Amino acid sequence: MPDPVTEALLSELVIANRVLAREGVVDDFGHVAARDPHDPTRFWLSRSRSPEIVSREDMIRFDLDANPENPGHLRPYLETILHARLFAARPDVMATVHHHSRPVLPFTLDPSRPLRPVFHLGSVIGPTVPFWDSQDEFGDTAMIIDTREVADSLAAALGPHPTALLARHGAICVGASIPEVCFCAIYMQENAAVQIAAEARGAPMFLTPGEIEKTRKMQFGERPLNRAWAYRRARAGFGPL
Amino acid sequence: MPDPVTEALLSELVIANRVLAREGVVDDFGHVAARDPHDPTRFWLSRSRSPEIVSREDMIRFDLDANPENPGHLRPYLETILHARLFAARPDVMATVHHHSRPVLPFTLDPSRPLRPVFHLGSVIGPTVPFWDSQDEFGDTAMIIDTREVADSLAAALGPHPTALLARHGAICVGASIPEVCFCAIYMQENAAVQIAAEARGAPMFLTPGEIEKTRKMQFGERPLNRAWAYRRARAGFGPL
Amino acid sequence: MPDPVTEALLSELVIANRVLAREGVVDDFGHVAARDPHDPTRFWLSRSRSPEIVSREDMIRFDLDANPENPGHLRPYLETILHARLFAARPDVMATVHHHSRPVLPFTLDPSRPLRPVFHLGSVIGPTVPFWDSQDEFGDTAMIIDTREVADSLAAALGPHPTALLARHGAICVGASIPEVCFCAIYMQENAAVQIAAEARGAPMFLTPGEIEKTRKMQFGERPLNRAWAYRRARAGFGPL
Amino acid sequence: MPDPVTEALLSELVIANRVLAREGVVDDFGHVAARDPHDPTRFWLSRSRSPEIVSREDMIRFDLDANPENPGHLRPYLETILHARLFAARPDVMATVHHHSRPVLPFTLDPSRPLRPVFHLGSVIGPTVPFWDSQDEFGDTAMIIDTREVADSLAAALGPHPTALLARHGAICVGASIPEVCFCAIYMQENAAVQIAAEARGAPMFLTPGEIEKTRKMQFGERPLNRAWAYRRARAGFGPL
Repeated sequence: MPDPVTEALLSELVIANRVLAREGVVDDFGHVAARDPHDPTRFWLSRSRSPEIVSREDMIRFDLDANPENPGHLRPYLETILHARLFAARPDVMATVHHHSRPVLPFTLDPSRPLRPVFHLGSVIGPTVPFWDSQDEFGDTAMIIDTREVADSLAAALGPHPTALLARHGAICVGASIPEVCFCAIYMQENAAVQIAAEARGAPMFLTPGEIEKTRKMQFGERPLNRAWAYRRARAGFGPL
Repeated sequence: MPDPVTEALLSELVIANRVLAREGVVDDFGHVAARDPHDPTRFWLSRSRSPEIVSREDMIRFDLDANPENPGHLRPYLETILHARLFAARPDVMATVHHHSRPVLPFTLDPSRPLRPVFHLGSVIGPTVPFWDSQDEFGDTAMIIDTREVADSLAAALGPHPTALLARHGAICVGASIPEVCFCAIYMQENAAVQIAAEARGAPMFLTPGEIEKTRKMQFGERPLNRAWAYRRARAGFGPL
Repeated sequence: MPDPVTEALLSELVIANRVLAREGVVDDFGHVAARDPHDPTRFWLSRSRSPEIVSREDMIRFDLDANPENPGHLRPYLETILHARLFAARPDVMATVHHHSRPVLPFTLDPSRPLRPVFHLGSVIGPTVPFWDSQDEFGDTAMIIDTREVADSLAAALGPHPTALLARHGAICVGASIPEVCFCAIYMQENAAVQIAAEARGAPMFLTPGEIEKTRKMQFGERPLNRAWAYRRARAGFGPL
Repeated sequence: MPDPVTEALLSELVIANRVLAREGVVDDFGHVAARDPHDPTRFWLSRSRSPEIVSREDMIRFDLDANPENPGHLRPYLETILHARLFAARPDVMATVHHHSRPVLPFTLDPSRPLRPVFHLGSVIGPTVPFWDSQDEFGDTAMIIDTREVADSLAAALGPHPTALLARHGAICVGASIPEVCFCAIYMQENAAVQIAAEARGAPMFLTPGEIEKTRKMQFGERPLNRAWAYRRARAGFGPL
């Protein structure tokens, strides 16, 4: 039986599902996972269900090879292994998101013009957003991250960065907490939309590396992060804390 | 009196109307039809009413020349014949959609730059989206598919494909089930929007034929299709199954 | 005391206000008027209030010089004279709309690239959308149609057409009924958005004059017009008829 | 204890928070402040909370160095000093907004192509929208206006104008009242979106200086401003006055 610390995490994870759905970052597809607060070799993820309608009863605990514990009749996402291998590769990461945000998708179609922070809040995506293409190692596939081999390839491409693009597919975000990874995913979407609009006008300015580093650190500080999380929770129907 | 199998289909058809309206694929205009589960020479379609407000009492059964059975005072859509001739031409098809999705419309204005899958979920539109123009055979018309001759011309252009464009008008989608044709119509709309945004940045990548084939097959498998249908039903107000 | 015929018209006029607000054609600004059903030298228009919150008590009857009858404490729109002079110039017109629809606005900024039907439903705007610029006759103004002289200039530019553009300002639509003018304003907005998206991809196709003529006639027939009006009313909260 | 005049202002300030959130001008971030009606050396601003969920109890009174009076446990916005120094620099200003409106952001990425009124309602942004870049005086920063030095630099760039852009960050708006500054912020967003769409088609027309001057004056007159405020309040859930 999960303890209060784990139950609190699972409540936050359900809310994260609803937040990302509310903000249009995920829809029928896409998912968010969180590492177990007591056992770093375990993580939590919903069974195969769209984030907008996920609830506590959908949550399954997995090991880092995506083996479910006690799933009963619940069927996991085909891409559970994606999250498993990110948690395996990144001990600093406590929460992960996989999404197909529509403003981000054009950036998955042209590696020569990367996604880069164009406003201060976009700094959360980091200075470098790697571009991973399943074609490079695997040729024609069904374009789903459903094996350890493919997931490890993607995790290697992510490296130490907070976000990465999957060619012709979507993106991943990782963070030190659920609020942080949601902030990252939401502002990855916002930054992408602004960058597209700015590029249509001509060559935009980008944040300098120094600006990205200083701004990122400040935005993930307690006051901005708490304010953002309270706002997004409220919009998703979970009322102010 | 319709039997339980037919009643289940008609409930699903009403929900499909609401789903497509909710997702903005159809609005005052546009429609979705389903082949009768017992008699392949018959199909069901609402009387002339916008999908958002269609209900069970609006449903009429037609033959493949769009002759209504027992319509009473209900007046059919002027384009009922469009669906009739698609069901006649395609024995593999169990559900059809005609729409004027706004992101798709620009692709109906330039046959030299076809709609093509640009992300994995867009694979549902198929590798080839034929372009049909009423001008070619019929010159200036009122641009409505309301005769057998025009509908058969369009069905011939569709051929074996899942989707086709109607110049300066809209599109059609066909599928093996109601959830499948809705998934197809929704992701036709999504793919179109992403392709437009990507083209504005330069020449995007497209899915390879191998990727389209493998991804399409996987996306129409039970788990993704069920998840998508549960999500879209819920958004349209019909609660989780 | 208004009779049942007039009361029915005023109900329809209130609903038109809400419909155009719901569809984003009007917002804080913009208005819709209807000619009196008994006296062609009179018309009805709300006092100065945003369409989304207009109700029966806001309605004032005016003559064709915009003189209000019995307004009490209600203050009319500054642009009431715009509608008055349209009704004066066009005996065939029974309803008018003035709006600043955002997709339409870019077309008010470049007379060399006119708004033209790009899909069948856009045929309602007519084959020609005149471009009127207050600068031509009046130089620098406060850009509001608040005198008889300016309104008559605009009406002359409209001529026999169903729609016209006001440079750097917005547009007008006229029709034979309230449902017709709403259909026209809504599809003017839709066509504008599609034309902008299509032009971004390259040179789009346009409807031929023959297609516009035939399609317009068909779209304003009873079945399409009734279906559209029922849909828009329902979306605005006025339930199905 | 605040008097009725101050209480009325604070109610209006809470509503302004909700209005700007409802119109998407602000979201998790962004804020609106108002000068004290009795003491011009004081102003009111919420504690650090997203505008959509701000209420009366969040309001704190500050002096023009952003020192809070009696904040208790409430923590102010990090950018409180931005508003303080605007009120200090501009005795004519009674309300201020700082936002990151997404349509406006592309204009913060290219000083060579300024934001300019493209339709009559856009005249509220003024004929000149200065462009301020923290890099010029401060090099790489965390891109937040949280010191007196940075805030005074921004206020100096604003000069006598109603709006200014902050490079790679957002914008500020100032006005003679809360309804006026909200009208300004909302139409800054609207004008930006129209200008971007128009530029994509080619070189748009802009309002002349004479048009801007005359139109601005008229739009901030009682009837248009009251109508707009009633509309925006109602959309934010505060019912018609």
